[in-house]
Amino acid sequence: MDYPDALNKLIESFMRYPGIGKKTAERYAFHTLHRFENEDIADFIDSLHRVKEEIKPCEQCGHLTDDSTCVICKDTRRDQTKILVVETSRDVIVIERSRSYDGLYHVLDGVIAPSEGIGPEDIRIKPLLERLRNDDVKEVILALNLSDEGETTAMYINRLLEKTDLLCTRIAYGLPAGGNIGYADVVTLHKALEGRKKY
Amino acid sequence: MDYPDALNKLIESFMRYPGIGKKTAERYAFHTLHRFENEDIADFIDSLHRVKEEIKPCEQCGHLTDDSTCVICKDTRRDQTKILVVETSRDVIVIERSRSYDGLYHVLDGVIAPSEGIGPEDIRIKPLLERLRNDDVKEVILALNLSDEGETTAMYINRLLEKTDLLCTRIAYGLPAGGNIGYADVVTLHKALEGRKKY
Repeated sequence: MDYPDALNKLIESFMRYPGIGKKTAERYAFHTLHRFENEDIADFIDSLHRVKEEIKPCEQCGHLTDDSTCVICKDTRRDQTKILVVETSRDVIVIERSRSYDGLYHVLDGVIAPSEGIGPEDIRIKPLLERLRNDDVKEVILALNLSDEGETTAMYINRLLEKTDLLCTRIAYGLPAGGNIGYADVVTLHKALEGRKKY
Repeated sequence: MDYPDALNKLIESFMRYPGIGKKTAERYAFHTLHRFENEDIADFIDSLHRVKEEIKPCEQCGHLTDDSTCVICKDTRRDQTKILVVETSRDVIVIERSRSYDGLYHVLDGVIAPSEGIGPEDIRIKPLLERLRNDDVKEVILALNLSDEGETTAMYINRLLEKTDLLCTRIAYGLPAGGNIGYADVVTLHKALEGRKKY
Protein backbone atom coordinates (compact mmCIF):
# COMPACT_ATOMS: atom_id res chain seq x y z
CA MET A 1 0.00 0.00 0.00
CA ASP A 2 1.46 3.34 -0.98
CA TYR A 3 0.52 6.52 -2.84
CA PRO A 4 -1.38 6.59 -6.12
CA ASP A 5 0.95 6.38 -9.12
CA ALA A 6 0.97 10.07 -10.14
CA LEU A 7 1.78 11.12 -6.58
CA ASN A 8 4.57 8.53 -6.34
CA LYS A 9 6.06 9.81 -9.59
CA LEU A 10 6.01 13.38 -8.33
CA ILE A 11 7.69 12.32 -5.09
CA GLU A 12 10.37 10.54 -7.13
CA SER A 13 10.99 13.66 -9.22
CA PHE A 14 11.51 15.77 -6.10
CA MET A 15 13.86 13.13 -4.68
CA ARG A 16 16.18 13.66 -7.65
CA TYR A 17 17.23 16.99 -6.14
CA PRO A 18 20.23 17.20 -3.81
CA GLY A 19 19.30 17.06 -0.15
CA ILE A 20 15.64 16.12 -0.73
CA GLY A 21 14.84 12.85 1.01
CA LYS A 22 11.62 10.86 0.96
CA LYS A 23 9.87 12.82 3.73
CA THR A 24 10.62 16.21 2.24
CA ALA A 25 9.63 15.01 -1.24
CA GLU A 26 6.31 13.80 0.17
CA ARG A 27 5.79 17.17 1.83
CA TYR A 28 6.40 18.99 -1.46
CA ALA A 29 4.14 16.61 -3.39
CA PHE A 30 1.30 17.15 -0.90
CA HIS A 31 1.90 20.88 -1.04
CA THR A 32 1.59 20.72 -4.83
CA LEU A 33 -1.61 18.73 -4.54
CA HIS A 34 -3.31 20.74 -1.81
CA ARG A 35 -1.94 24.26 -2.07
CA PHE A 36 -1.05 24.87 -5.69
CA GLU A 37 -3.67 26.44 -7.93
CA ASN A 38 -3.86 25.08 -11.48
CA GLU A 39 -2.15 28.30 -12.54
CA ASP A 40 0.80 27.67 -10.19
CA ILE A 41 1.25 24.21 -11.66
CA ALA A 42 1.04 25.58 -15.19
CA ASP A 43 3.73 28.15 -14.31
CA PHE A 44 5.96 25.46 -12.82
CA ILE A 45 5.54 23.22 -15.87
CA ASP A 46 6.17 26.13 -18.22
CA SER A 47 9.41 27.12 -16.49
CA LEU A 48 10.65 23.51 -16.49
CA HIS A 49 9.89 23.34 -20.22
CA ARG A 50 11.63 26.60 -20.96
CA VAL A 51 14.71 26.25 -18.79
CA LYS A 52 16.36 23.58 -20.90
CA GLU A 53 15.22 25.06 -24.18
CA GLU A 54 16.05 28.71 -23.68
CA ILE A 55 18.97 28.85 -21.30
CA LYS A 56 22.39 28.38 -22.86
CA PRO A 57 25.93 29.64 -22.29
CA CYS A 58 26.86 33.08 -23.59
CA GLU A 59 28.96 32.62 -26.73
CA GLN A 60 31.61 34.92 -25.34
CA CYS A 61 31.94 34.37 -21.59
CA GLY A 62 29.96 31.16 -20.99
CA HIS A 63 27.59 32.77 -18.46
CA LEU A 64 23.98 31.61 -18.65
CA THR A 65 21.76 33.62 -20.94
CA ASP A 66 18.65 33.31 -23.08
CA ASP A 67 20.31 35.28 -25.87
CA SER A 68 23.47 34.56 -27.90
CA THR A 69 25.41 37.06 -25.77
CA CYS A 70 24.75 37.71 -22.08
CA VAL A 71 23.77 41.08 -20.62
CA ILE A 72 27.19 41.55 -19.04
CA CYS A 73 29.12 41.06 -22.30
CA LYS A 74 26.64 43.36 -24.05
CA ASP A 75 27.16 46.17 -21.55
CA THR A 76 29.81 48.40 -23.16
CA ARG A 77 30.00 50.60 -20.06
CA ARG A 78 31.73 47.80 -18.19
CA ASP A 79 35.51 47.77 -17.90
CA GLN A 80 36.66 45.82 -20.97
CA THR A 81 40.22 45.52 -19.75
CA LYS A 82 39.52 42.97 -17.01
CA ILE A 83 38.30 39.38 -17.21
CA LEU A 84 37.39 37.62 -13.99
CA VAL A 85 37.58 33.83 -14.28
CA VAL A 86 35.09 31.74 -12.25
CA GLU A 87 34.04 28.10 -12.08
CA THR A 88 30.29 28.51 -12.53
CA SER A 89 27.54 30.92 -13.55
CA ARG A 90 26.37 31.07 -9.96
CA ASP A 91 29.69 32.64 -9.02
CA VAL A 92 28.99 35.40 -11.57
CA ILE A 93 25.61 36.11 -10.02
CA VAL A 94 27.01 36.22 -6.48
CA ILE A 95 29.84 38.58 -7.46
CA GLU A 96 27.40 40.77 -9.40
CA ARG A 97 25.13 41.01 -6.38
CA SER A 98 28.07 42.11 -4.25
CA ARG A 99 28.60 45.08 -6.64
CA SER A 100 32.33 44.78 -6.10
CA TYR A 101 33.38 44.29 -9.72
CA ASP A 102 32.57 46.02 -13.00
CA GLY A 103 34.68 44.17 -15.60
CA LEU A 104 33.91 41.13 -17.73
CA TYR A 105 33.69 37.48 -16.72
CA HIS A 106 34.72 34.10 -18.02
CA VAL A 107 32.94 30.97 -16.82
CA LEU A 108 35.13 27.85 -16.97
CA ASP A 109 32.23 25.47 -16.35
CA GLY A 110 34.25 23.41 -13.94
CA VAL A 111 37.82 22.94 -12.76
CA ILE A 112 40.66 20.64 -13.69
CA ALA A 113 40.14 17.46 -11.64
CA PRO A 114 42.51 14.67 -12.72
CA SER A 115 40.95 12.27 -10.18
CA GLU A 116 37.61 12.60 -11.99
CA GLY A 117 39.21 12.53 -15.42
CA ILE A 118 38.54 16.24 -16.07
CA GLY A 119 41.46 17.77 -17.96
CA PRO A 120 42.12 21.35 -19.22
CA GLU A 121 40.43 20.52 -22.51
CA ASP A 122 37.19 19.59 -20.71
CA ILE A 123 36.61 23.07 -19.31
CA ARG A 124 36.41 26.40 -21.13
CA ILE A 125 40.12 27.31 -21.05
CA LYS A 126 40.57 27.40 -24.82
CA PRO A 127 37.75 29.95 -25.32
CA LEU A 128 39.43 32.04 -22.59
CA LEU A 129 42.73 32.07 -24.47
CA GLU A 130 40.90 33.11 -27.62
CA ARG A 131 39.31 36.04 -25.82
CA LEU A 132 42.71 37.14 -24.53
CA ARG A 133 43.89 37.80 -28.08
CA ASN A 134 41.75 40.91 -27.91
CA ASP A 135 44.09 43.81 -27.21
CA ASP A 136 41.64 45.49 -24.82
CA VAL A 137 42.25 42.91 -22.13
CA LYS A 138 44.98 43.81 -19.66
CA GLU A 139 44.21 41.73 -16.57
CA VAL A 140 42.94 38.23 -15.86
CA ILE A 141 41.63 37.81 -12.30
CA LEU A 142 41.36 34.22 -11.11
CA ALA A 143 38.42 33.79 -8.71
CA LEU A 144 38.46 30.04 -8.18
CA ASN A 145 37.44 28.25 -5.04
CA LEU A 146 40.02 27.35 -2.41
CA SER A 147 40.27 23.63 -3.19
CA ASP A 148 42.90 21.33 -4.67
CA GLU A 149 41.12 21.51 -8.03
CA GLY A 150 40.80 25.30 -7.84
CA GLU A 151 44.51 25.61 -7.06
CA THR A 152 45.49 23.26 -9.89
CA THR A 153 43.32 25.15 -12.37
CA ALA A 154 44.63 28.56 -11.25
CA MET A 155 48.20 27.35 -11.50
CA TYR A 156 47.56 25.93 -14.98
CA ILE A 157 46.04 29.16 -16.30
CA ASN A 158 48.72 31.31 -14.67
CA ARG A 159 51.41 29.26 -16.39
CA LEU A 160 49.76 29.75 -19.78
CA LEU A 161 49.66 33.50 -19.23
CA GLU A 162 53.27 33.82 -18.07
CA LYS A 163 54.35 33.99 -21.69
CA THR A 164 52.04 36.96 -22.38
CA ASP A 165 52.00 40.61 -21.32
CA LEU A 166 48.79 40.09 -19.39
CA LEU A 167 48.61 40.72 -15.66
CA CYS A 168 47.34 37.59 -13.93
CA THR A 169 45.99 38.08 -10.39
CA ARG A 170 44.09 36.00 -7.84
CA ILE A 171 41.44 37.03 -5.38
CA ALA A 172 42.49 37.02 -1.70
CA TYR A 173 41.83 33.98 0.50
CA GLY A 174 41.61 34.19 4.26
CA LEU A 175 39.28 34.35 7.23
CA PRO A 176 35.76 35.30 6.06
CA ALA A 177 33.60 37.98 7.67
CA GLY A 178 31.99 36.48 10.75
CA GLY A 179 34.49 33.65 10.62
CA ASN A 180 35.91 32.44 13.92
CA ILE A 181 39.62 31.65 14.11
CA GLY A 182 38.87 28.98 16.69
CA TYR A 183 36.80 27.08 14.13
CA ALA A 184 38.72 27.90 10.95
CA ASP A 185 40.22 25.06 8.93
CA VAL A 186 43.94 24.63 8.37
CA VAL A 187 43.92 25.77 4.73
CA THR A 188 42.05 28.99 5.50
CA LEU A 189 44.38 29.81 8.38
CA HIS A 190 47.39 29.05 6.24
CA LYS A 191 46.11 31.37 3.49
CA ALA A 192 45.18 34.06 6.01
CA LEU A 193 48.69 34.11 7.47
CA GLU A 194 50.43 33.79 4.16
CA GLY A 195 48.43 36.74 2.78
CA ARG A 196 48.96 39.02 5.80
CA LYS A 197 49.52 42.71 5.13
CA LYS A 198 51.33 45.51 6.91
CA TYR A 199 48.97 47.34 9.26
CA MET B 1 21.43 41.99 -13.44
CA ASP B 2 19.92 38.66 -12.55
CA TYR B 3 19.10 35.29 -14.10
CA PRO B 4 17.53 34.84 -17.52
CA ASP B 5 13.74 34.89 -17.37
CA ALA B 6 13.06 31.13 -17.59
CA LEU B 7 15.52 30.44 -14.79
CA ASN B 8 14.00 33.18 -12.62
CA LYS B 9 10.55 31.69 -13.16
CA LEU B 10 11.76 28.24 -12.16
CA ILE B 11 13.38 29.68 -9.02
CA GLU B 12 10.08 31.40 -8.18
CA SER B 13 8.18 28.12 -8.58
CA PHE B 14 10.51 26.33 -6.18
CA MET B 15 10.19 29.19 -3.70
CA ARG B 16 6.45 28.51 -3.47
CA TYR B 17 7.23 25.38 -1.43
CA PRO B 18 7.40 25.52 2.36
CA GLY B 19 10.92 25.92 3.68
CA ILE B 20 12.50 26.66 0.29
CA GLY B 21 14.24 30.04 0.33
CA LYS B 22 15.96 31.85 -2.49
CA LYS B 23 19.32 30.07 -2.15
CA THR B 24 17.83 26.59 -2.09
CA ALA B 25 15.51 27.43 -4.99
CA GLU B 26 18.53 28.61 -6.99
CA ARG B 27 20.34 25.39 -6.18
CA TYR B 28 17.39 23.30 -7.40
CA ALA B 29 17.01 25.39 -10.55
CA PHE B 30 20.70 24.93 -11.38
CA HIS B 31 20.43 21.25 -10.65
CA THR B 32 17.52 21.05 -13.09
CA LEU B 33 19.50 22.90 -15.72
CA HIS B 34 22.81 21.08 -15.35
CA ARG B 35 21.96 17.62 -14.07
CA PHE B 36 18.52 16.71 -15.37
CA GLU B 37 18.30 14.85 -18.65
CA ASN B 38 15.44 15.85 -20.95
CA GLU B 39 13.75 12.65 -19.88
CA ASP B 40 13.92 13.61 -16.18
CA ILE B 41 12.32 16.95 -16.96
CA ALA B 42 9.62 15.26 -19.05
CA ASP B 43 8.89 12.91 -16.11
CA PHE B 44 8.69 15.81 -13.69
CA ILE B 45 6.34 17.76 -15.98
CA ASP B 46 4.20 14.68 -16.55
CA SER B 47 3.78 14.01 -12.83
CA LEU B 48 2.90 17.65 -12.15
CA HIS B 49 0.28 17.46 -14.91
CA ARG B 50 -1.16 14.23 -13.63
CA VAL B 51 -1.18 14.90 -9.92
CA LYS B 52 -3.98 17.46 -10.02
CA GLU B 53 -5.93 15.65 -12.70
CA GLU B 54 -5.83 12.09 -11.41
CA ILE B 55 -5.56 12.28 -7.65
CA LYS B 56 -8.83 12.78 -5.80
CA PRO B 57 -10.37 11.74 -2.48
CA CYS B 58 -11.79 8.22 -2.17
CA GLU B 59 -15.59 8.49 -2.32
CA GLN B 60 -15.89 6.44 0.84
CA CYS B 61 -13.06 7.34 3.21
CA GLY B 62 -11.57 10.51 1.68
CA HIS B 63 -8.07 9.02 1.33
CA LEU B 64 -6.16 10.01 -1.81
CA THR B 65 -6.67 7.70 -4.76
CA ASP B 66 -6.62 7.68 -8.55
CA ASP B 67 -9.76 5.56 -8.63
CA SER B 68 -13.27 6.21 -7.29
CA THR B 69 -12.54 4.00 -4.27
CA CYS B 70 -9.11 3.67 -2.63
CA VAL B 71 -7.19 0.40 -2.28
CA ILE B 72 -7.87 0.23 1.44
CA CYS B 73 -11.66 0.50 1.10
CA LYS B 74 -11.54 -2.04 -1.74
CA ASP B 75 -9.66 -4.59 0.36
CA THR B 76 -12.40 -6.84 1.78
CA ARG B 77 -9.89 -8.76 3.93
CA ARG B 78 -9.50 -5.72 6.16
CA ASP B 79 -11.45 -5.50 9.40
CA GLN B 80 -14.72 -3.80 8.38
CA THR B 81 -15.84 -3.26 11.98
CA LYS B 82 -13.32 -0.49 12.75
CA ILE B 83 -12.95 3.01 11.34
CA LEU B 84 -9.88 5.01 12.30
CA VAL B 85 -10.41 8.77 11.96
CA VAL B 86 -7.43 10.93 10.94
CA GLU B 87 -6.86 14.51 9.85
CA THR B 88 -5.02 13.92 6.58
CA SER B 89 -4.15 11.31 3.98
CA ARG B 90 -0.53 11.44 5.09
CA ASP B 91 -1.61 10.10 8.47
CA VAL B 92 -3.14 7.10 6.67
CA ILE B 93 0.12 6.37 4.87
CA VAL B 94 2.18 6.66 8.06
CA ILE B 95 -0.13 4.33 10.00
CA GLU B 96 -0.19 1.86 7.09
CA ARG B 97 3.59 1.83 7.01
CA SER B 98 3.67 1.03 10.73
CA ARG B 99 1.59 -2.11 10.04
CA SER B 100 -0.17 -1.59 13.35
CA TYR B 101 -3.75 -1.40 12.06
CA ASP B 102 -5.86 -3.44 9.65
CA GLY B 103 -9.28 -1.78 9.73
CA LEU B 104 -10.74 1.03 7.62
CA TYR B 105 -9.96 4.76 7.71
CA HIS B 106 -11.79 8.04 7.50
CA VAL B 107 -9.92 11.19 6.48
CA LEU B 108 -11.47 14.37 7.89
CA ASP B 109 -9.40 16.68 5.70
CA GLY B 110 -8.73 19.02 8.56
CA VAL B 111 -9.86 19.75 12.10
CA ILE B 112 -12.38 22.08 13.68
CA ALA B 113 -10.57 25.39 14.17
CA PRO B 114 -12.95 28.17 15.23
CA SER B 115 -10.12 30.73 15.21
CA GLU B 116 -9.62 30.08 11.50
CA GLY B 117 -13.36 29.91 10.81
CA ILE B 118 -13.31 26.14 10.21
CA GLY B 119 -16.44 24.54 11.64
CA PRO B 120 -17.68 20.93 11.74
CA GLU B 121 -19.42 21.38 8.39
CA ASP B 122 -16.12 22.34 6.72
CA ILE B 123 -14.47 18.98 7.38
CA ARG B 124 -15.67 15.49 6.45
CA ILE B 125 -17.72 14.73 9.58
CA LYS B 126 -21.04 14.34 7.75
CA PRO B 127 -19.69 11.62 5.41
CA LEU B 128 -18.33 9.87 8.52
CA LEU B 129 -21.78 9.80 10.14
CA GLU B 130 -23.23 8.42 6.91
CA ARG B 131 -20.70 5.60 6.92
CA LEU B 132 -21.57 4.77 10.52
CA ARG B 133 -25.12 3.85 9.48
CA ASN B 134 -23.56 0.67 8.10
CA ASP B 135 -24.23 -2.08 10.65
CA ASP B 136 -20.77 -3.62 10.18
CA VAL B 137 -19.06 -0.78 12.01
CA LYS B 138 -18.60 -1.37 15.74
CA GLU B 139 -15.75 0.95 16.71
CA VAL B 140 -14.59 4.46 15.78
CA ILE B 141 -10.97 5.15 16.73
CA LEU B 142 -10.04 8.82 16.90
CA ALA B 143 -6.40 9.34 15.87
CA LEU B 144 -6.18 13.12 15.86
CA ASN B 145 -3.11 15.14 16.69
CA LEU B 146 -2.52 16.37 20.21
CA SER B 147 -3.48 20.02 19.66
CA ASP B 148 -6.32 22.29 20.75
CA GLU B 149 -8.02 21.72 17.38
CA GLY B 150 -7.48 17.96 17.57
CA GLU B 151 -9.00 17.87 21.05
CA THR B 152 -11.98 19.99 20.01
CA THR B 153 -12.65 17.80 16.99
CA ALA B 154 -12.32 14.57 18.98
CA MET B 155 -14.67 15.88 21.64
CA TYR B 156 -17.18 16.96 19.01
CA ILE B 157 -17.21 13.57 17.27
CA ASN B 158 -17.34 11.69 20.57
CA ARG B 159 -20.40 13.69 21.60
CA LEU B 160 -22.16 12.82 18.34
CA LEU B 161 -21.47 9.12 18.90
CA GLU B 162 -22.60 9.06 22.53
CA LYS B 163 -26.18 8.60 21.36
CA THR B 164 -25.24 5.52 19.32
CA ASP B 165 -24.18 1.97 20.20
CA LEU B 166 -20.78 2.52 18.66
CA LEU B 167 -17.61 2.22 20.71
CA CYS B 168 -15.62 5.46 20.40
CA THR B 169 -11.94 5.23 21.39
CA ARG B 170 -8.88 7.48 21.14
CA ILE B 171 -5.28 6.55 20.49
CA ALA B 172 -2.91 6.93 23.47
CA TYR B 173 -0.91 10.11 23.95
CA GLY B 174 2.29 10.27 25.96
CA LEU B 175 6.07 10.26 25.81
CA PRO B 176 7.24 9.06 22.36
CA ALA B 177 9.91 6.44 21.74
CA GLY B 178 13.29 8.13 22.09
CA GLY B 179 11.59 11.06 23.85
CA ASN B 180 13.38 12.59 26.80
CA ILE B 181 11.32 13.54 29.85
CA GLY B 182 13.73 16.38 30.52
CA TYR B 183 12.79 17.96 27.21
CA ALA B 184 9.13 16.94 26.99
CA ASP B 185 6.49 19.67 26.76
CA VAL B 186 3.84 20.22 29.42
CA VAL B 187 0.95 18.76 27.40
CA THR B 188 2.81 15.53 26.59
CA LEU B 189 3.82 15.07 30.23
CA HIS B 190 0.29 15.78 31.35
CA LYS B 191 -1.08 13.16 28.93
CA ALA B 192 1.63 10.66 29.87
CA LEU B 193 0.77 10.91 33.55
CA GLU B 194 -2.98 11.02 33.01
CA GLY B 195 -2.75 7.88 30.85
CA ARG B 196 -0.53 5.89 33.22
CA LYS B 197 -1.26 2.18 33.57
CA LYS B 198 -0.76 -0.39 36.32
CA TYR B 199 2.62 -2.09 35.94
